[in-house]
Amino acid sequence: MDFSSRLLENAVNEFAKLPGIGQKTALRLVLHLLKQNEQDVYQFSNAITKLKNEIRFCRNCHNISDTTVCEICASAKRDKTLICIVEDVRDVMAIENTGQYQGVYHVLGGLISPMDGIGPADLFIESLVNRVKEGEIAEVILALSATMEGDTTIFYIYKKLKDFPIKVSTIARGISFGGELEYVDEVTLGRSIATRVPYENSLLK
Amino acid sequence: MDFSSRLLENAVNEFAKLPGIGQKTALRLVLHLLKQNEQDVYQFSNAITKLKNEIRFCRNCHNISDTTVCEICASAKRDKTLICIVEDVRDVMAIENTGQYQGVYHVLGGLISPMDGIGPADLFIESLVNRVKEGEIAEVILALSATMEGDTTIFYIYKKLKDFPIKVSTIARGISFGGELEYVDEVTLGRSIATRVPYENSLLK
Repeated sequence: MDFSSRLLENAVNEFAKLPGIGQKTALRLVLHLLKQNEQDVYQFSNAITKLKNEIRFCRNCHNISDTTVCEICASAKRDKTLICIVEDVRDVMAIENTGQYQGVYHVLGGLISPMDGIGPADLFIESLVNRVKEGEIAEVILALSATMEGDTTIFYIYKKLKDFPIKVSTIARGISFGGELEYVDEVTLGRSIATRVPYENSLLK
Repeated sequence: MDFSSRLLENAVNEFAKLPGIGQKTALRLVLHLLKQNEQDVYQFSNAITKLKNEIRFCRNCHNISDTTVCEICASAKRDKTLICIVEDVRDVMAIENTGQYQGVYHVLGGLISPMDGIGPADLFIESLVNRVKEGEIAEVILALSATMEGDTTIFYIYKKLKDFPIKVSTIARGISFGGELEYVDEVTLGRSIATRVPYENSLLK
């Protein structure tokens, strides 16, 4: 693209580095910001710098937090004997939004993926094992994506935890609520028949 | 959405104010920035603040510029007797990218739109008339969108300029190159027949 201004070009290039933002979208966003008043633009860039400088990660569960221990870990209402293992912060939010979970979390910070050079040592698996070692944990729920990386990570963590006197479970896989049978892929449909549940258990409480 | 951090929430809300960016996309972008190193994040927020603080608009044509007079107006290669009137900076870039135009520009900064409370006084129409008054202009090309606002603006500017000894033209409307007749809307197709051109004139040079 031919910019008549180097300042504009810089700003557009910075925006275009963000995932899913191309040059045209970047230009649209930058021109939008340029139309706002100075205070708003300052507020925008300040929110980002402040986030980067001041954000912390929870000492226990590695969730994003403003304090040393996150709100969830600090809450007296949460069941500390139940740990849900997730890939990243977005999964914590997704599960929190369901309002169905009362335990605490453990954020791995990624999945084991030899292709991307991510090994177990790059993830917070050691600190998970330490939390389990300290006792007080009754059950660990593996809530990871149903991909090859997710399955590898689940298997690795399962091996690490299987000798402790705790329950290790994974979230249920199957057909989505509202999903039509004919459009479901074969693997999911096949597995959902193999792992069928008694009708009484399938009812939402 | 339920954020575990106020800093994160602030940054996401700031991003979500941008056009076409919802809460989920904003979160994805913010978490991406959070993964970058401090230098990169500083560079990002700095590019925006710097743009806002230091950008100027060309004294002649109101195009975005790093200097008092933009590169296009300052260039000795451009034909100063030919002015192309456009809505905003993006249109200048679009026309520059065609490589077909050798004149200069005049950026209106919007279109007349009573619905949005934008009248002629909010646009750079007076300064256009002044440029024409100063003489040296041979032709003015109205390159505005083919919408009601565009047509209103074209009509207003035409009335303002018609008594000057200059040519006032608009860009050609018609069927896109590569466009199939059967998918073209009736208005465009009808007008393109009414405003048909001799075959020799239609050949690209």
